[in-house]
Amino acid sequence: MGTGEIIMYLEKISTPADVKKLDTEQLVILAEEMRAALIQKLSKHGGHFGPNLGMVEATIALHYVFDSPKDKIVFDVSHQSYCHKMLTGRKDAFLHEEQYDDVSGYTNPAESKHDFFNVGHTSTSVSLASGLAKARDLSGESGNVIAVIGDGSLSGGEALEGLDFASELKSNFIIIVNDNNMSIAENHGGLYQNLKELRETNGTSPCNLFRAFGLDYRFVPDGNDISAMIAALQEVKDIDHPVVVHMVTQKGKGYALAEQYKENWHWCMPFDVETGKPTVSFEGEDYGTLTADFLLEKMKHDPKVVAVTAAVPTVMGFTEEKRKAAGKQFVDVGIAEEHAVAFSSGIAAAGSKPVFATYSSFIQRTFDQLSQDLCINKSPATVLIYTASVFGMSDITHLGIYDIPLISNIPDMVYLAPTCKEEYFAMLNWSIEQNQYPVAVRVPCNGVISDGEQAETDYSNLNKYQVKQQGSKTAILALGDFYQLGEETAKSIAEKTGIAPTLVNPRYITGLDEKLLTKLKENHSIVITLEDGILDGGFGEKIARFYGTSDVKVLNYGLKKEFLDRYNVEEVMYQNRLTPEQIADDVLQLSE
Amino acid sequence: MGTGEIIMYLEKISTPADVKKLDTEQLVILAEEMRAALIQKLSKHGGHFGPNLGMVEATIALHYVFDSPKDKIVFDVSHQSYCHKMLTGRKDAFLHEEQYDDVSGYTNPAESKHDFFNVGHTSTSVSLASGLAKARDLSGESGNVIAVIGDGSLSGGEALEGLDFASELKSNFIIIVNDNNMSIAENHGGLYQNLKELRETNGTSPCNLFRAFGLDYRFVPDGNDISAMIAALQEVKDIDHPVVVHMVTQKGKGYALAEQYKENWHWCMPFDVETGKPTVSFEGEDYGTLTADFLLEKMKHDPKVVAVTAAVPTVMGFTEEKRKAAGKQFVDVGIAEEHAVAFSSGIAAAGSKPVFATYSSFIQRTFDQLSQDLCINKSPATVLIYTASVFGMSDITHLGIYDIPLISNIPDMVYLAPTCKEEYFAMLNWSIEQNQYPVAVRVPCNGVISDGEQAETDYSNLNKYQVKQQGSKTAILALGDFYQLGEETAKSIAEKTGIAPTLVNPRYITGLDEKLLTKLKENHSIVITLEDGILDGGFGEKIARFYGTSDVKVLNYGLKKEFLDRYNVEEVMYQNRLTPEQIADDVLQLSE
Repeated sequence: MGTGEIIMYLEKISTPADVKKLDTEQLVILAEEMRAALIQKLSKHGGHFGPNLGMVEATIALHYVFDSPKDKIVFDVSHQSYCHKMLTGRKDAFLHEEQYDDVSGYTNPAESKHDFFNVGHTSTSVSLASGLAKARDLSGESGNVIAVIGDGSLSGGEALEGLDFASELKSNFIIIVNDNNMSIAENHGGLYQNLKELRETNGTSPCNLFRAFGLDYRFVPDGNDISAMIAALQEVKDIDHPVVVHMVTQKGKGYALAEQYKENWHWCMPFDVETGKPTVSFEGEDYGTLTADFLLEKMKHDPKVVAVTAAVPTVMGFTEEKRKAAGKQFVDVGIAEEHAVAFSSGIAAAGSKPVFATYSSFIQRTFDQLSQDLCINKSPATVLIYTASVFGMSDITHLGIYDIPLISNIPDMVYLAPTCKEEYFAMLNWSIEQNQYPVAVRVPCNGVISDGEQAETDYSNLNKYQVKQQGSKTAILALGDFYQLGEETAKSIAEKTGIAPTLVNPRYITGLDEKLLTKLKENHSIVITLEDGILDGGFGEKIARFYGTSDVKVLNYGLKKEFLDRYNVEEVMYQNRLTPEQIADDVLQLSE
Repeated sequence: MGTGEIIMYLEKISTPADVKKLDTEQLVILAEEMRAALIQKLSKHGGHFGPNLGMVEATIALHYVFDSPKDKIVFDVSHQSYCHKMLTGRKDAFLHEEQYDDVSGYTNPAESKHDFFNVGHTSTSVSLASGLAKARDLSGESGNVIAVIGDGSLSGGEALEGLDFASELKSNFIIIVNDNNMSIAENHGGLYQNLKELRETNGTSPCNLFRAFGLDYRFVPDGNDISAMIAALQEVKDIDHPVVVHMVTQKGKGYALAEQYKENWHWCMPFDVETGKPTVSFEGEDYGTLTADFLLEKMKHDPKVVAVTAAVPTVMGFTEEKRKAAGKQFVDVGIAEEHAVAFSSGIAAAGSKPVFATYSSFIQRTFDQLSQDLCINKSPATVLIYTASVFGMSDITHLGIYDIPLISNIPDMVYLAPTCKEEYFAMLNWSIEQNQYPVAVRVPCNGVISDGEQAETDYSNLNKYQVKQQGSKTAILALGDFYQLGEETAKSIAEKTGIAPTLVNPRYITGLDEKLLTKLKENHSIVITLEDGILDGGFGEKIARFYGTSDVKVLNYGLKKEFLDRYNVEEVMYQNRLTPEQIADDVLQLSE
């Protein structure tokens, strides 16, 4: 908050016990202060905007009624946990700009005993919390266990499995469904018709998804009404069986633009509070927008082309306007990655041309579908993997550096690693038009780089690497968006050793060009691999295995197998010896 | 069928068109013949028993009403597709013993144009079929698309995601829910209360899971009544929107023992038709039974120990009787692997001691939960991976050879590979009692082998390999249940080269014993790795990377990255050079 404003209550909240000291009128003022703090911080810092503005009153009510951490609150995705953080000893990270980065954007047990899990993926809260409840029952302890889950997260398989299981607990378990009638974009899926029916009947509709899962049910028409929320929660506190409290909140509440444009304000960059305009801007091209435009053009000429997303349409550039332009050729299945992959496999099996796109971190949610539904059936669908990179998202729960071991070790999958714009679109176009292979494409994440060259159009001759620069002694296999690092490394090696190395664009993550690799032995004694992901289970290790019995020395460069969190890219690159100079030094040392 | 029996109709069915020629009375006789053929074949061959006996009439009705393959039927799991196979040109594989193996146990596009997918995992049909429907709509084609899914499969996340999405299709899509009130074992989850309510109200209960997912709904009280099924399907044929046909069938119908003991007769070994007694028997110990007994003993002394299964309780030996003995310390979450892992993580995070067990093939369904819910949170849960081996199940959809790349490349996971009974139980016991690491244990699959030695009890000093035999020149790192292959290989190498090699039990799949590996360089020029799984992304490649810059030659042995199907183990071992003689030959050649 600006120093000129009066903070009557928030400044005094150190623990949830301090919330309990306030009366309803004071709690309403506290809510206003929290909302002002959120808008202030997020306008300068960026972050999840709409979800937190909607959760102010409910969070106050939760901490007023329950006794955290004895009573355990588990937030789904936990991008809506900012208010919870404010009330559990972390208010300063929302009040003072210099402390903004003291907290992560998600719940984090390292920050507070009031946080039980590091979470960031959707749809996990019910299952995780039901585990806490089970442990409580096994050890004969007491206390409430509460899962807080948004309506958008309900469509995810893990959440639905958890909801189905919950009734089996037969003991205290409270599921708060925060229904703001939105996912990141609009909701998709039949269950949202039922939520609408429940909202419109004040929770009295006899057809009730939660009751159909065997759960008790309560409805709170206005989850932004502190008194109503307190009353509702007091009623379920210490309940002896699982119950759903379905509360309706307003996403973005308290900031007019966010109330109106919910999708745009789900997450925000720093912005001007008066105008809502972003105060930072990105110039130039991005692969999302380029991809949407490319696909829209293809859709015009081919009714069989269809783009599929699991609730993240803009990762591939499909803004609301472009989704409308695509019409039936764009499908948002909601948060349901497993379904998205199997659905795409079905589409491809029947001869149409699906392109499913998601983040590297979220493709993790659908390994079995990639293997069983897609690859065993050799369905020629296309999967685009975004932010699969050290340059991607840096929160521990959203890292994009694990997809190579995940995807590339599935038999019959073709995983392509384009190195520039021309190659990316050539590969994408080939993948859409071919009907032999399941294909995944690792979208570059180091900016849109054009090499100005005409890329090859046919990638059906699998695992043929491309020699970009013929040299000797050392060969660099520079995969995907580490190709440019490979170019720099080649220069550095040439400078330091006086011998220009060979530079290769492997293009295929999923297989070896044994002919080329064998030929390299003739006049190369060192082979370097570079990949933008963890080394374990990755591309470089396959090369190391290939040369295992030869005299060629292999140096694998990539990232260490570890969970990073909010890291500095340059530091991580340096620690992993991923600078051209470090690599050239290693080559020099090995040559001596 | 025995040659003495009269087959009036089944012998004459070559295509579904032949089914349509029969009248109701004849169809009833056809059903009897099919049921007799099933009992006959399965009593000699083994296979999925109860599910197919229950589906005879419904399958006849499906092919009587619909026009396959223009109308497309997708079977969930497809272990209930035997009757479908009989009616689509594959009857001989059910009538003549010498042709029994002409068909697989699941749908298979390579066998017939009436099969659309290779499936074997549960809960995929709705998503796959909805893809077929979408492709039909995109290309302006017509025809019905039908998904057939059992009640047990409904609890899986992929199925629930698919059900939720289905209503968005807004065009022809028919979901047949085959409700026999059973999963493999009894059903678990709240939705089964709703199915019960629907059965008891003849489908009229206003609270209806399927309607809550936005779907139209019909109820057929007796799915084993051919006329009723025909009438119900005729009513939904060519429907212009998604609809669920909820039919009640009797699992195991027509074989009294299977009707009574549904769990035991879900799948059968060859048996005597008169007595129901198996005609083959296994002697000796198995890890399932041993594990259940071990856990039951621990449970007696520690109320915090809890075994968790996702609908496959007997994989870890928990028969109905042992489940009862465990009481609240055994939890079957139903077919819901994602939930099972997150639930276990929650239990462990709160200080109790969960042991989740499943098949290698099914752990694939929960990668993100292993990574995000379990490992990021460092929850000290135990996961047991069964049939993770070339010696495991051999159907393409149930292979157990992909778990090493899947599990071992997740940061902070400890994946252990015991080599014998003593080591397995020592590792399991350590894992249950420790509270630092998420631990998975790869249960040996080459029989219960006892080495008679006292195994170490503490595995918290991670990645410390065990030298079992000190030799020179060649070192063999023999992982898990390939340790015995390592022993034989050591002998063979000693014989052929005259130099006894070093034999190492690596124990840890997830990390390197760099100290030992460095020391091996001193008097070894060849290092061999053996692992019972695919090489890509596996253990051996990590060793190859480690030695990449040294003079040590590395030979990695394991399986090729490919989808095998109903293979002969010995052949596969030979093709992958996994016999002691072949390996010794390779060493000899490399030494020359």
